[in-house]
Amino acid sequence: MTTIAESTGLGSTKRADGRAADQLRPVTIERGWSAQAEGSALISFGGTKVLCTASFTNGVPRWLTGKGKGWVTAEYGMLPRSTNDRMDREAVKGKVGGRTHEISRLIGRSLRAVVDMKALGENTIVIDCDVLQADGGTRTAAITGAYVALADAIDWGRAQGFIAKKATALKDSVSAVSVGIIDGTPLLDLAYVEDVRAETDMNVVVTGSGHFVEVQGTAEGAPFDRAELDALLDLAVGGCVDLAAAQRAALGA
Amino acid sequence: MTTIAESTGLGSTKRADGRAADQLRPVTIERGWSAQAEGSALISFGGTKVLCTASFTNGVPRWLTGKGKGWVTAEYGMLPRSTNDRMDREAVKGKVGGRTHEISRLIGRSLRAVVDMKALGENTIVIDCDVLQADGGTRTAAITGAYVALADAIDWGRAQGFIAKKATALKDSVSAVSVGIIDGTPLLDLAYVEDVRAETDMNVVVTGSGHFVEVQGTAEGAPFDRAELDALLDLAVGGCVDLAAAQRAALGA
Amino acid sequence: MTTIAESTGLGSTKRADGRAADQLRPVTIERGWSAQAEGSALISFGGTKVLCTASFTNGVPRWLTGKGKGWVTAEYGMLPRSTNDRMDREAVKGKVGGRTHEISRLIGRSLRAVVDMKALGENTIVIDCDVLQADGGTRTAAITGAYVALADAIDWGRAQGFIAKKATALKDSVSAVSVGIIDGTPLLDLAYVEDVRAETDMNVVVTGSGHFVEVQGTAEGAPFDRAELDALLDLAVGGCVDLAAAQRAALGA
Amino acid sequence: MTTIAESTGLGSTKRADGRAADQLRPVTIERGWSAQAEGSALISFGGTKVLCTASFTNGVPRWLTGKGKGWVTAEYGMLPRSTNDRMDREAVKGKVGGRTHEISRLIGRSLRAVVDMKALGENTIVIDCDVLQADGGTRTAAITGAYVALADAIDWGRAQGFIAKKATALKDSVSAVSVGIIDGTPLLDLAYVEDVRAETDMNVVVTGSGHFVEVQGTAEGAPFDRAELDALLDLAVGGCVDLAAAQRAALGA
Amino acid sequence: MTTIAESTGLGSTKRADGRAADQLRPVTIERGWSAQAEGSALISFGGTKVLCTASFTNGVPRWLTGKGKGWVTAEYGMLPRSTNDRMDREAVKGKVGGRTHEISRLIGRSLRAVVDMKALGENTIVIDCDVLQADGGTRTAAITGAYVALADAIDWGRAQGFIAKKATALKDSVSAVSVGIIDGTPLLDLAYVEDVRAETDMNVVVTGSGHFVEVQGTAEGAPFDRAELDALLDLAVGGCVDLAAAQRAALGA
Amino acid sequence: MTTIAESTGLGSTKRADGRAADQLRPVTIERGWSAQAEGSALISFGGTKVLCTASFTNGVPRWLTGKGKGWVTAEYGMLPRSTNDRMDREAVKGKVGGRTHEISRLIGRSLRAVVDMKALGENTIVIDCDVLQADGGTRTAAITGAYVALADAIDWGRAQGFIAKKATALKDSVSAVSVGIIDGTPLLDLAYVEDVRAETDMNVVVTGSGHFVEVQGTAEGAPFDRAELDALLDLAVGGCVDLAAAQRAALGA
Repeated sequence: MTTIAESTGLGSTKRADGRAADQLRPVTIERGWSAQAEGSALISFGGTKVLCTASFTNGVPRWLTGKGKGWVTAEYGMLPRSTNDRMDREAVKGKVGGRTHEISRLIGRSLRAVVDMKALGENTIVIDCDVLQADGGTRTAAITGAYVALADAIDWGRAQGFIAKKATALKDSVSAVSVGIIDGTPLLDLAYVEDVRAETDMNVVVTGSGHFVEVQGTAEGAPFDRAELDALLDLAVGGCVDLAAAQRAALGA
Repeated sequence: MTTIAESTGLGSTKRADGRAADQLRPVTIERGWSAQAEGSALISFGGTKVLCTASFTNGVPRWLTGKGKGWVTAEYGMLPRSTNDRMDREAVKGKVGGRTHEISRLIGRSLRAVVDMKALGENTIVIDCDVLQADGGTRTAAITGAYVALADAIDWGRAQGFIAKKATALKDSVSAVSVGIIDGTPLLDLAYVEDVRAETDMNVVVTGSGHFVEVQGTAEGAPFDRAELDALLDLAVGGCVDLAAAQRAALGA
Repeated sequence: MTTIAESTGLGSTKRADGRAADQLRPVTIERGWSAQAEGSALISFGGTKVLCTASFTNGVPRWLTGKGKGWVTAEYGMLPRSTNDRMDREAVKGKVGGRTHEISRLIGRSLRAVVDMKALGENTIVIDCDVLQADGGTRTAAITGAYVALADAIDWGRAQGFIAKKATALKDSVSAVSVGIIDGTPLLDLAYVEDVRAETDMNVVVTGSGHFVEVQGTAEGAPFDRAELDALLDLAVGGCVDLAAAQRAALGA
Repeated sequence: MTTIAESTGLGSTKRADGRAADQLRPVTIERGWSAQAEGSALISFGGTKVLCTASFTNGVPRWLTGKGKGWVTAEYGMLPRSTNDRMDREAVKGKVGGRTHEISRLIGRSLRAVVDMKALGENTIVIDCDVLQADGGTRTAAITGAYVALADAIDWGRAQGFIAKKATALKDSVSAVSVGIIDGTPLLDLAYVEDVRAETDMNVVVTGSGHFVEVQGTAEGAPFDRAELDALLDLAVGGCVDLAAAQRAALGA
Repeated sequence: MTTIAESTGLGSTKRADGRAADQLRPVTIERGWSAQAEGSALISFGGTKVLCTASFTNGVPRWLTGKGKGWVTAEYGMLPRSTNDRMDREAVKGKVGGRTHEISRLIGRSLRAVVDMKALGENTIVIDCDVLQADGGTRTAAITGAYVALADAIDWGRAQGFIAKKATALKDSVSAVSVGIIDGTPLLDLAYVEDVRAETDMNVVVTGSGHFVEVQGTAEGAPFDRAELDALLDLAVGGCVDLAAAQRAALGA
Repeated sequence: MTTIAESTGLGSTKRADGRAADQLRPVTIERGWSAQAEGSALISFGGTKVLCTASFTNGVPRWLTGKGKGWVTAEYGMLPRSTNDRMDREAVKGKVGGRTHEISRLIGRSLRAVVDMKALGENTIVIDCDVLQADGGTRTAAITGAYVALADAIDWGRAQGFIAKKATALKDSVSAVSVGIIDGTPLLDLAYVEDVRAETDMNVVVTGSGHFVEVQGTAEGAPFDRAELDALLDLAVGGCVDLAAAQRAALGA
């Protein structure tokens, strides 16, 4: 991994957990955590823990019926006390909040980008990403773990004969990481204490072959310029190389 | 532990997992699973896994203000794919279902039965019990794990000075177990495959000193008679003796 | 009716309305109160008045279709000013509360326990129990009155030819009563002023032949022991003998 | 009462229940039906039965606070099986329908028109009108019964000292009736079978002194002309004279 | 146009905008404002601006299927800052308010009164009336503009061959206006500053041939008498003559 | 404006409306469209028309109180028939959809990026962006128009004395544009027919001084590489230069 931080002279930044600017938190992926789901993974990015399950069912939503294509969608949620202060439960509030909606849609789009829907056939895979503990980067951990669950659900579908033997339903792998600028320094994989201080915050979704699926950068403080954007993209691409490796390791590929 | 099954000649029942009629599934309690909550436990009753967190806050709901008493309440939820078939997410449906409401209320009542609200002072503890994996007995596992989380949250409150040093806010411990009758045989701690076949299903909440907090028996098939009720209560009380021991062990008491 | 109170020396308890410990409040059942419903009853347990209607329709919910079985379900509600202080209307709040859900489910289960669904055929009966005035025991009055409405709706279905002539769709009758312990004394059929003072509160649903359909006991104050549980069950079974007689009288059976 | 029907040659119309064109259905008002509410009336217009309660509380909604004025509002509801076919319960649907909203607002406006809010003082009266059985004219029966409940709640407030002794909080009485045109004939107080056939349907709310509070006429079939409108208004005013008399009788005034 | 005001000696009333008592505000109708809808009109009654669109679709709601008839329905809404103080958005509140429901229903009924549903055939037209700016009389402007949109949508349907060439799906035109009494003077087409001061407020819906579709009069202050009602109706009928002319002009008829 | 298209040889692309690859659709801004709001603009990007209003109120949400800072938030909505096929009204569905939430949040963040909250003082500005007609790029038109409304509302607040005379509450201007890749060619400001065909779709929010506030790129088809990302960013920055000029012109600055 190319160390962007060093090359840009950012190596001096002190992170609360002692990481280098371009270093991921420890990543663990417990594949097959759930005994019920067709695919599952409990993923940790440091203190962030997300349980990802993939539910495989035959058939597709009505608007897709008869087109010979499958569908992949995702839902994201947080346990009420996954955060430092307890949040109200969305089921009790009776509605899904804007942030939840936004992240659910992001996860779904990210996964669909690497699925060959024709190869999937008229089957639906629903991904659930539930944050058990939150310490920054929950959406990126969710995407990264969801890919592992998705891959297993697709294998399950093939083993059951619901997907053609030779069909390569996955065109690529996909992972995601957050990057941000704190005190002028671009940093990889922000923990919560970093996230709240970041002037710019970006979530980047990258395929195993290094292409972009999503780039979502937001100026929380001062607007950012092209050079900062470039440095953040470099950091993110580097982080996703490591995440893709962790996914391959988890899948025994 | 008195083996009710043998004494009533029920020893011959074959359970899918080879247990005796009066035997609990393996129980594990991971105390302090959550880094965020004031108290927490990840409890397993066999394949049933429930994450219980206790959130401590100063102050009480408006209707209790100024009475010098605390409050304990609980919310229960299931992850969408905690079950064999994926359930719709209650947040997405926009309402909490009847069963969820019912269990949330049961957990809250069960815990309040062992709390001295005056000793707790004007503080509120919210218990969240989220089922990560369901294999029968989720509400009883939830109550049993929630007690451990509650005990730690109370200790936390005392350490912070929010509860008086000498106040014994917990009057007793509390645990719960399900019992049921299958093919005429009373069985302890039903797994899901047993639960769906049970003619009668009962959830019993018992204090550490062996008194009843809740007894909820339902004839799913044929109505039951007094002798069957008595046999079920005996089984449940025996099971709760073991659960209380597991709680003590987890709490290092 | 065996007088448990006397045998346990509880005869001395003074109840606000002068009743003996094992005495029901006056029970009246106005069968056929509604001109619209296929079966109906306005039942009173003292000051508690519940209007029960049974609506018969051909067909069953989708998940039951084609199985040759019928379905019985129930909904419970309270008028906003059925209580001493006006409650917000659930329709206006936009959601059904936990207690309402819980009682609706209890009524449905209680009635289904005495219905032979094969004999009912692919027909659905929806029971509505609306509390016009509440003075304790609304759920038990609802179950007791709902049975009368249900019986008439079944007769209506038979008269219309929707149920086979010889089919005995009702296997038994069913009624319910509350019992509780106040100042250490077990009491039958609690009025509201008693209910709020009860240390233990139990609702018991019993068939005409004396078997249990539901036993729901809750320690509101101190947990209770087996002897207290036994005394409460004895009281409840005795009360249900009288309620079954009142049902038979109402139905002219 | 002037018989408009005769004078316009409509006397020959045959109504299903044999009434004359300008004749009300039998009206009964059971004042004080509810033991809980500060005022109540169970009113019948033929087969239509509405339970009206008035709940008196001190204080007013925030937007009125400190203006020395009171407030009167109303909510209307129908029991699910008050109608010939069971309707879904609005609480279960999670929202109040348009028709319900419309009628609740109409009842509230009609009652406020006869209340002197200054004399009422900073007190609120909430009227609940729940239809137990529906056979046409539920909103007009509701207004007519609600007035009786309101009058009693105001007297209760005066007896409690919440309203000044000499304050005449009621400026007048108010009642309502439906009128409509069937086969070209104007008819008073339509029953359900008439209501569904009416070409024009009008609800008229009239004070005891004969002034209009609301006039709501709708062409269900062909638009109507001024002469028809005039005939309907005459009929309605005549009907309200009788309803005002029934209210006075119920109130013993 | 007959000047009711003069004939009743009301000419001396000073209106904020200098209008005569029986004078409409300037009315403009921008037909075909929307490039998307099958029919549309942006209508102004003075400062009140309402965008009306008509959406034509084949088929009818399930309850109408197979009867050879069409359906017309309407929805009304206000932009949050169409009013002087910003209102909460109904979508955000999660429910449609009573007033919105009431007006949507009124618009739908008013339009259906002039449609020949048989001639429309099994097609549905949904009218949306969204208030962009509100200055009194939004519902009457909505009805008046909606008619223009409806007429164009019907012509579109005929051009597409969805409606038979010779079918006269519109039996008449329809428009609406508000009238009210201020300081004892009947006034036509109330602006917002007048509306809030009106003792009596009436919305009148009139066909092109001068018949009534709806008459909705409400005493906001003192109840009104027959003479006042008559004066208001006269004013309204006169105003609708002018509105019908404006509709014809907009439609180039 | 630098023509990126030419420099990258993309000039040969034929767009449906004949535009060059780097050409905006005609932009019009009707400042002060609303007579009610403190600031407003009706903006068009070709066929896309969005009404933007800014509502100024004193005070801030509770969580900000007493910090001497202001708040700016936004809500986005679409009229049901702003689109080619009528959409269900979110108020009627009873919930705000994910896309709506997402865009509302984006608009709010974009505007806050150029506001000096200290200079704004404890005042709140709510921006409403309602799409009257949709033809692609509604969110970018909304941001661009909202800035104009915001600027006027701030001036209004200063004129009223709610904002200090010398306070420069706006640090910069902000505008937004969509860019995308179709058939391998990067295009500026996608119309709807282009949007649905785009392989990659990006919304870019840029300040008047050329810095980024938001960059949201999504691979709808094949993931994109760094060169494509760069070309899109160049196009967007160029487009925002023109939009900033249009804003200045509208504001007469």
